[in-house]
Amino acid sequence: MFPQNNPGQPYSLIRKNRRKINMSQAQVYWHEHAVSRQERETLNGNKGCVLWFTGLSACGKSTIANLADHLLHQSGKHSFVLDGDNVRHGLNAGTGMLKDVHGEEFAKRFGLGFSAQDREENIRRIGAVAKLFAEAGLIAITAFISPYRTDRDRVRKSLPEGDFIEVFVDTPIEICEQRDPKGLYKKARAGELKGFTGIDDPYEAPETPELILDGGRKTAEQLAGEVIAFLKSKGKI
Amino acid sequence: MFPQNNPGQPYSLIRKNRRKINMSQAQVYWHEHAVSRQERETLNGNKGCVLWFTGLSACGKSTIANLADHLLHQSGKHSFVLDGDNVRHGLNAGTGMLKDVHGEEFAKRFGLGFSAQDREENIRRIGAVAKLFAEAGLIAITAFISPYRTDRDRVRKSLPEGDFIEVFVDTPIEICEQRDPKGLYKKARAGELKGFTGIDDPYEAPETPELILDGGRKTAEQLAGEVIAFLKSKGKI
Repeated sequence: MFPQNNPGQPYSLIRKNRRKINMSQAQVYWHEHAVSRQERETLNGNKGCVLWFTGLSACGKSTIANLADHLLHQSGKHSFVLDGDNVRHGLNAGTGMLKDVHGEEFAKRFGLGFSAQDREENIRRIGAVAKLFAEAGLIAITAFISPYRTDRDRVRKSLPEGDFIEVFVDTPIEICEQRDPKGLYKKARAGELKGFTGIDDPYEAPETPELILDGGRKTAEQLAGEVIAFLKSKGKI
Repeated sequence: MFPQNNPGQPYSLIRKNRRKINMSQAQVYWHEHAVSRQERETLNGNKGCVLWFTGLSACGKSTIANLADHLLHQSGKHSFVLDGDNVRHGLNAGTGMLKDVHGEEFAKRFGLGFSAQDREENIRRIGAVAKLFAEAGLIAITAFISPYRTDRDRVRKSLPEGDFIEVFVDTPIEICEQRDPKGLYKKARAGELKGFTGIDDPYEAPETPELILDGGRKTAEQLAGEVIAFLKSKGKI
């Protein structure tokens, strides 16, 4: 039903198509040939990828992730941080939040808590969104404890080779526990929080992460600098 | 545990902070003060927002959405299309896809089909992701039938005023059915597809969409042009 193209409008997606086609074919063709990832990366001046921070609560993930985001932004690169602040209130909302808007049955099924299954889905959704950001040509930076190796490895496998950059913020638990900015370790030790990573739930450190950051000995600025240097060495920026 | 800042490194997030703080405070402060949406929009040269296309199967949503995306990209603006192609295989995968990787119980709970509840969650997740893209300063373009008014209105409400731009592709069902590029109407009429929008499941047209596109009479190029003109008129680009 879309009539013949106006030949005066040389859309890139039409230019790419070398055979003569009628418009019903073109409709399908166009849909398939969206702006390519490479075209988006050229516009952005950086490659898309996923910087996946992992580590204990209070290890410095979010601090370093946000510093790296600032450094990238300042140099005109395109990045975005996914963390509890913007994911837990929307995409991965808990049962309580969903209940008010969607009702109890819906909330019970799709709302996410801290059970093993809920954590698995939490990481799956974050991985899928980070992938979309990478496809859009952004450096997606995720900052979640993501304690289980299997969950992280599934995200790695879902992405093209080289897109998943696992950043292990290796801060000794004693130091994390000293910091304890939200008093969570204290509550976990007192038994008020169950299933807390590092206390009564395991943290499975990455075996071969792309980058290990020494969160116990170096400053957040130094570590953010190491992230930037890594991205440069891999030709992402 | 992060030692005192090196004063020689004037990160913008440090510059913004006018009081003297110790590093444990700074850690929290930094986390809260990520790169602002406004800073991202300035870098991108466009405002973030959500262009929410809605309309019957084969009404032209994806074609127009991808054309608009191309036009935006060509003028150096930052946009990204979310559609069945990139969402149905990842974030909103069906039960069958999830089963292989995550097991049956998990897939049954989180995998999405076409029941009313599944459609509701489908749109909820897409809305949440589109919101993240808008916060990243991109023009998120979604192309899904999204037949139910309540679901679309929930997404609208989840976004700041002015961010949700509902684009109703108003193509008569007779024309959609003539096009039928994937033979879906034919199957639905034959009773091989149940719950097909417009045939045996309702399509609830928007009551006050920001933009109505006449998909039965104008070309996809003309309609994509109308979308661009609208974005200009609202100061988004």
